[in-house]
Amino acid sequence: MTHLPNIFYLSNLHSSSGVLVLTPKNGRLLVDFRYQEAVANLIGAKGFPPDIQVVEVPGSYEESLSSVISHAGWSRVGVEAEHMSLRFWQWLRKSITAEIVETEGLVENLRILKDAHEIALFREAGERIVSALALIRQQGFSSRSEVEISHEIERRLFEVGFDGTAFSTIVASGLNSALPHAQPTSRKVTDGDLVVLDFGGNYHGYSVDLTRTVAVGRLSSEQKRLHEAVCLAQEAALKTIHPGILASSVDKAARDVLRDFGLADAFGHSTGHGLGIEVHELPRVGRKRIQGGPTEGDITLEPGMVFTVEPGVYVPGIGGVRVEDDVLVTHDGFEMLTEAPRGLSVTK
Amino acid sequence: MTHLPNIFYLSNLHSSSGVLVLTPKNGRLLVDFRYQEAVANLIGAKGFPPDIQVVEVPGSYEESLSSVISHAGWSRVGVEAEHMSLRFWQWLRKSITAEIVETEGLVENLRILKDAHEIALFREAGERIVSALALIRQQGFSSRSEVEISHEIERRLFEVGFDGTAFSTIVASGLNSALPHAQPTSRKVTDGDLVVLDFGGNYHGYSVDLTRTVAVGRLSSEQKRLHEAVCLAQEAALKTIHPGILASSVDKAARDVLRDFGLADAFGHSTGHGLGIEVHELPRVGRKRIQGGPTEGDITLEPGMVFTVEPGVYVPGIGGVRVEDDVLVTHDGFEMLTEAPRGLSVTK
Repeated sequence: MTHLPNIFYLSNLHSSSGVLVLTPKNGRLLVDFRYQEAVANLIGAKGFPPDIQVVEVPGSYEESLSSVISHAGWSRVGVEAEHMSLRFWQWLRKSITAEIVETEGLVENLRILKDAHEIALFREAGERIVSALALIRQQGFSSRSEVEISHEIERRLFEVGFDGTAFSTIVASGLNSALPHAQPTSRKVTDGDLVVLDFGGNYHGYSVDLTRTVAVGRLSSEQKRLHEAVCLAQEAALKTIHPGILASSVDKAARDVLRDFGLADAFGHSTGHGLGIEVHELPRVGRKRIQGGPTEGDITLEPGMVFTVEPGVYVPGIGGVRVEDDVLVTHDGFEMLTEAPRGLSVTK
Repeated sequence: MTHLPNIFYLSNLHSSSGVLVLTPKNGRLLVDFRYQEAVANLIGAKGFPPDIQVVEVPGSYEESLSSVISHAGWSRVGVEAEHMSLRFWQWLRKSITAEIVETEGLVENLRILKDAHEIALFREAGERIVSALALIRQQGFSSRSEVEISHEIERRLFEVGFDGTAFSTIVASGLNSALPHAQPTSRKVTDGDLVVLDFGGNYHGYSVDLTRTVAVGRLSSEQKRLHEAVCLAQEAALKTIHPGILASSVDKAARDVLRDFGLADAFGHSTGHGLGIEVHELPRVGRKRIQGGPTEGDITLEPGMVFTVEPGVYVPGIGGVRVEDDVLVTHDGFEMLTEAPRGLSVTK
């Protein structure tokens, strides 16, 4: 394993480099000097796999891994094709005699179904992000810059107990809201603005993600219509969530509503994405893709999956609206992890 | 180009996905729906390369890039071997008839020498991070938790004008300071602590990085000796900086001092790393490596290079000290970008 979120999942090691090798019986964890003490604290702790030998990497990971494989005498090793660079692979190919087998999604597919520990973390994190939103709403938005509001959001995330942000906070006001991934600017929020607030927190290694679009002062009827369309699209998408359906059918439900509003082209992204150790992971909740493509996988929902439902519309010259919640698939539908008002309450 | 910092360097596009294809005459920039409007604002702006056609990616980047290459009829394409996954490469190999040439460090090597625009940004960013440090020192540290101090540091970084943090802030106190990459904990700083503060800011796309170790209350003579050793090691390293010398000789100067203090084994990381769009980039300022390894490159210093000088010692059971500054190599030596007191001033 060369993908750090997979290594964290399997070992609880949080690091910026590392390689984990597992065999049916034991394994090796390769980390450099910086993480020796962190690893020493994990050995024997809950969640750390048994019979793992820690190998200190003095120089390059390529060299250390080649040497570990050669010494162990393994004849066949799997690598994570999506998370190994072409360079690393070429180096291995030259340096070891073992057969290299390309694998894809082995650990990611395990990560899709959350266990009891993970579900408990998601419930706590969901409550915390909702309480951060309440604090943020109290403060009001008018006359404050997008950057200032984004800093306040990040401060509130820490205040309610997150260990960090899950991604760069988005505050997009007025015409900026028409950019789905806008970065906060010095623009000050003014009367008649739609303001998209999209923020995420990392809680004990897991990410939650929430978006609300607030109305500041009086909006035009077209702005109100955009917001209504998105809320109805989200509602339709949520209603479909049930074990046994395809993730793409959640997306289709949202897309159908927006199409009926004449907003098909204004909704360019997917309806949602899985949440977990990464802020974007499986299942992808998007359009059905053509079979045979590199990323066609359309996952059937099962209890224990956690993902976002976040339709949005983006109309240059008018603005944008996105509403996003996080859900857990249950045996008979879904559990809302981020229960917070989503209607268009006009605010300062 | 598939490496986002390289794409930012060449186009000013700041995004979380994208592929840039350049030919001697023109090029293609592949981005998905999320960045269409951001790209539209860059076209024609200063720093955006001429004759770039923007291609919207509706599904996967693998499919879109294959299709762009096939339609253009190019017979030979270079890829960034370090920044292309094995999976992406396998997909291209199956889908295009063009020859795929693996390249390494083409854009990274251009990025080593900073131009006037970049140097101006570094000088401003250096002043700002120093002023953030002064604000942080004012507040005092005693009885505050590492997490609380790290939040204050991040708040101060925004306050002095940074767009974001360059990495997760490190606040490591007492015995935690013996972990070179400690994460802040709920431990409260107490009398007799060494506290390592390592933080970085992102300023208009460029990263600066500063570390100071402060003494809270009375220290033992061994703690004082560690701090003195690190300061002398840094001083020795700085003195060597001059165009024409190898980056590894800066590292050697620091290492020699620490060896004379009997601390050779307590200094496990490199003396420094280049700064730029990435917080770790070329030149690597570390031990001379054996020729023929995957990352042996030892760069000769030239005016315009920017890197950190950050020796440190880490002694389990006692604590750690690291002192880090950012320098610009000039025609006759170096310019200190982060001029701030580095002595062991005892604080609350």
